[in-house]
Amino acid sequence: MTLAPWRSALARALHRNRSRAYSRYLQLATLNLEGKPSNRTVVFRGFVDEKLQMVSDGRSEKIQQIQACPWAEICWYFTVTREQFRIAGELTLIGPNNELETIRINAWQAMSENAHQQFYWPHPGHARTDAKAFEPAVIATNQPPDSFSVLLLKAHRVEHLELRGNPQNRFVYEWTDGEWTVEEVNP
Amino acid sequence: MTLAPWRSALARALHRNRSRAYSRYLQLATLNLEGKPSNRTVVFRGFVDEKLQMVSDGRSEKIQQIQACPWAEICWYFTVTREQFRIAGELTLIGPNNELETIRINAWQAMSENAHQQFYWPHPGHARTDAKAFEPAVIATNQPPDSFSVLLLKAHRVEHLELRGNPQNRFVYEWTDGEWTVEEVNP
Repeated sequence: MTLAPWRSALARALHRNRSRAYSRYLQLATLNLEGKPSNRTVVFRGFVDEKLQMVSDGRSEKIQQIQACPWAEICWYFTVTREQFRIAGELTLIGPNNELETIRINAWQAMSENAHQQFYWPHPGHARTDAKAFEPAVIATNQPPDSFSVLLLKAHRVEHLELRGNPQNRFVYEWTDGEWTVEEVNP
Repeated sequence: MTLAPWRSALARALHRNRSRAYSRYLQLATLNLEGKPSNRTVVFRGFVDEKLQMVSDGRSEKIQQIQACPWAEICWYFTVTREQFRIAGELTLIGPNNELETIRINAWQAMSENAHQQFYWPHPGHARTDAKAFEPAVIATNQPPDSFSVLLLKAHRVEHLELRGNPQNRFVYEWTDGEWTVEEVNP
């Protein structure tokens, strides 16, 4: 299987912006339970097959949101090269007891101890808990806790905007009838 | 009228991150006409009264989206101080022939010539036009063209997350019964 045509542009952006750790941070928009837009920063954790991988605490609001509506759009701005990718598509959630457990275990093992610790913290979004509750006694490095969830985004439409250049360059990639099309459009 | 309590935290973030021009870039999530999330980077252009101001080409897709559904959530990540603001609320659109024309004229006059030029470019999102079409002969510096629109976001809920600190700090501000409440919650 060949890579989607927008993948090389994204790989190039990741490479050219690699000096800034936050180049792996992107904004994930979903719908909340009232059907209104919800938007937060998450960390890109590589591709699994052709899907973009992120992780989340299973107790966070976005999990319920995604269970109710799997549609999402990522907005990803790269500050060094001044380019933006918008990636719209459908999310798959991998919580505990999922047939894709291997993906969840791999994602857990790829993360740092600091990142692990957060999944043992008290319930996110609840009234602030005593500081001691944020010092988990035991952290399993091999096996993820139930709070650990993986999000996989299957892209259906990708828009790439390069602000450098006058006028700017803008490309739209769409997954149509089992293949990717690309069109250059006005910025 | 006193400032909303989250305004001082946001002002501090803008000040501490001012060395990076892109600290004024934020991600605006709306709903597309199919009711799915849509997400793109826009530039923050100051406050008008208590509302966040942005601008847009009136021909861009987000204008129709906002006419159909004014709800939005901004996600704004500051890279120097490592903090995030999520601002959910309702958008007001100011196109031509609007009773708020003064705001639209002020916003236009505050922008650079380069920024002005883009509103004379060919229709955004349409198939790429010949390069010559991107060189407008005349640009009005005093009076905005019809393509120039202002977006004002009235915040209903603000979430402030400071990644620095262990554990992180997270505050939720809500506009309830005519006043702002604030709660400290678990990150």
